[in-house]
Amino acid sequence: MAANDAAADGTAENLVAEAARVGELARVLQDSAASLITRTSEEEQALRQRALALDADLGRLWSAFEDAVRRGCALDPKEVEKLDEELYRARCLVSEGDVGSLLPSKAHGPFLRKFLGPIGVRANRKDVRLKVKEEYNKYRDRTAYMFLLFPSALLVLRTSIWNGCFPAWPVQLYQAWLLFLYTSLALRENILRVNGSDIRAWWIYHHYLAMLIALISLTWEIKGQPDCANKQKGVQLFLGWAVMQGFAMLLQNRYQRQRLYTRIALGKARRMDVVWGETAGVEGQLWVLCPILFILQVVVCGIILILMAVGNFVNTVQTLMAKSRFKAKMKRSRSKQENLRSD
Amino acid sequence: MAANDAAADGTAENLVAEAARVGELARVLQDSAASLITRTSEEEQALRQRALALDADLGRLWSAFEDAVRRGCALDPKEVEKLDEELYRARCLVSEGDVGSLLPSKAHGPFLRKFLGPIGVRANRKDVRLKVKEEYNKYRDRTAYMFLLFPSALLVLRTSIWNGCFPAWPVQLYQAWLLFLYTSLALRENILRVNGSDIRAWWIYHHYLAMLIALISLTWEIKGQPDCANKQKGVQLFLGWAVMQGFAMLLQNRYQRQRLYTRIALGKARRMDVVWGETAGVEGQLWVLCPILFILQVVVCGIILILMAVGNFVNTVQTLMAKSRFKAKMKRSRSKQENLRSD
Repeated sequence: MAANDAAADGTAENLVAEAARVGELARVLQDSAASLITRTSEEEQALRQRALALDADLGRLWSAFEDAVRRGCALDPKEVEKLDEELYRARCLVSEGDVGSLLPSKAHGPFLRKFLGPIGVRANRKDVRLKVKEEYNKYRDRTAYMFLLFPSALLVLRTSIWNGCFPAWPVQLYQAWLLFLYTSLALRENILRVNGSDIRAWWIYHHYLAMLIALISLTWEIKGQPDCANKQKGVQLFLGWAVMQGFAMLLQNRYQRQRLYTRIALGKARRMDVVWGETAGVEGQLWVLCPILFILQVVVCGIILILMAVGNFVNTVQTLMAKSRFKAKMKRSRSKQENLRSD
Repeated sequence: MAANDAAADGTAENLVAEAARVGELARVLQDSAASLITRTSEEEQALRQRALALDADLGRLWSAFEDAVRRGCALDPKEVEKLDEELYRARCLVSEGDVGSLLPSKAHGPFLRKFLGPIGVRANRKDVRLKVKEEYNKYRDRTAYMFLLFPSALLVLRTSIWNGCFPAWPVQLYQAWLLFLYTSLALRENILRVNGSDIRAWWIYHHYLAMLIALISLTWEIKGQPDCANKQKGVQLFLGWAVMQGFAMLLQNRYQRQRLYTRIALGKARRMDVVWGETAGVEGQLWVLCPILFILQVVVCGIILILMAVGNFVNTVQTLMAKSRFKAKMKRSRSKQENLRSD
């Protein structure tokens, strides 16, 4: 408003006075912003100290509790129930609530650092973290359909339009899309980990391997006529495998969604879980694999696929076992509750 | 400590009491953290309102000032100098200081959204933003050397070890590295833009095109003996061009670094500049280009290289013009100052 008046007047005095006023305002605002930032970070630091101490206390208490249960101490079922409940709730508050954003986050990891540089990708606000997780799930759902439809379309077009012989570019377009897809999944999963998600390390490594396969598949020569059907057998197998994989992904997504709903319904789901005990010693081996992979190419693609299948199997079994342990525990506590009620 | 005692005792009463204490602590801490977050975001919101109002005022005043100068109003040189100084300083405070982090940031852009999902990549603290920019510059320096050495090594090894005939895998490894390099550069530059850097949109588009070329080059068949030298002429040309490009990158980095130092020395450099007026209408055309590119491949690679050369030329000339305008302005203001002194 005042600036407009000065413009209308256009007199030198007005302009100078206005500039001085606005300059002063800018300095005051800068001081306020700087002091807000300093004050906030000091308060955060104080809360962080308390959160770290509490986290350590909680860890010690948890193992003392487990130790007591193991030694068969004189704890009656009611007390065990109560302790379990109390400690679990405290842990949820610390890891999931607003306190969680104060605790130091999981390390950035070399993958994110290489692609993004040193920028932080941790959301301070809980709703943003949940939105990131939700969007990741939606992305996986969307791409699962693409994953199924893209190679199916290629296989159908091969017989219906292309007379049994793939042109090179649609196959390569598909391979490039795969490379993009796996890269974006690996990036998003690393970001989720930094934000406190419980994605198993294996699935991220799985996507690194998948990136490698997509990259190698791009170097394949797509041979044409004559004797096309014979020369393109590898491509056809690859696409057939992709269609099966697409089905598997759809089923997996559905299963995991269902599992999440169940856990939320049971009140036991932490919406951005903390990672369980996992070792990440595979990395070094991956870097040794790289040069070999580029030599052996297609053969190694097969080996990787087998490795991935084994890894998937092991991890799925582990997940199922964790789930059955959880179910057994729920059953035990439910029967205990019923016992208490019937007492 | 208290938790340790409980563990040592292991008695049920101690454990229950400890769990209750820790649970209470967790609840209190959660409340403190939640209230800090609410309070901070309220204060930020209030400051943001003031920052937006100030920013608008500043814009109006700036155009009123420029208008007055154009109309040749009764402003003596001393006043012009003072106004210029005052407004420039206020603008720097608003766009660069802690106030800057309160103003709404540039939109995320589809590239970042596709690769990273909806996570925010804006650093609130100014030192982090500057660190991101510095690390980006260092990354460019490091990769410029790699960019020169990698293809040079391939060309040298070709004659010294490989008997004039490239094996496929080292060339493909190089092409895969190029794809990674350009992807990471495009991601980092998009992140810099979100953090208020003045990178010209062209350089980001340039890296999208470079990603495309690297991707297409991966699909090339690296043919071997017999008549290797003839069949691999394209690869050789590509590597030769890369060596030249490596030299150009090193020179460019050195020039830009020098330019930044000069601007900082002149006190006119804003370390995370605001982007100048640019239109982003190229995007739609890029998506039309995609299918054609995959058909024409090598030919189109050549066309893209020409496009990139033209784009680079135009943008470099524009930068030089902006620089000479800036120089002329500096000269004018200096001679004005001398006039004032000699008055």
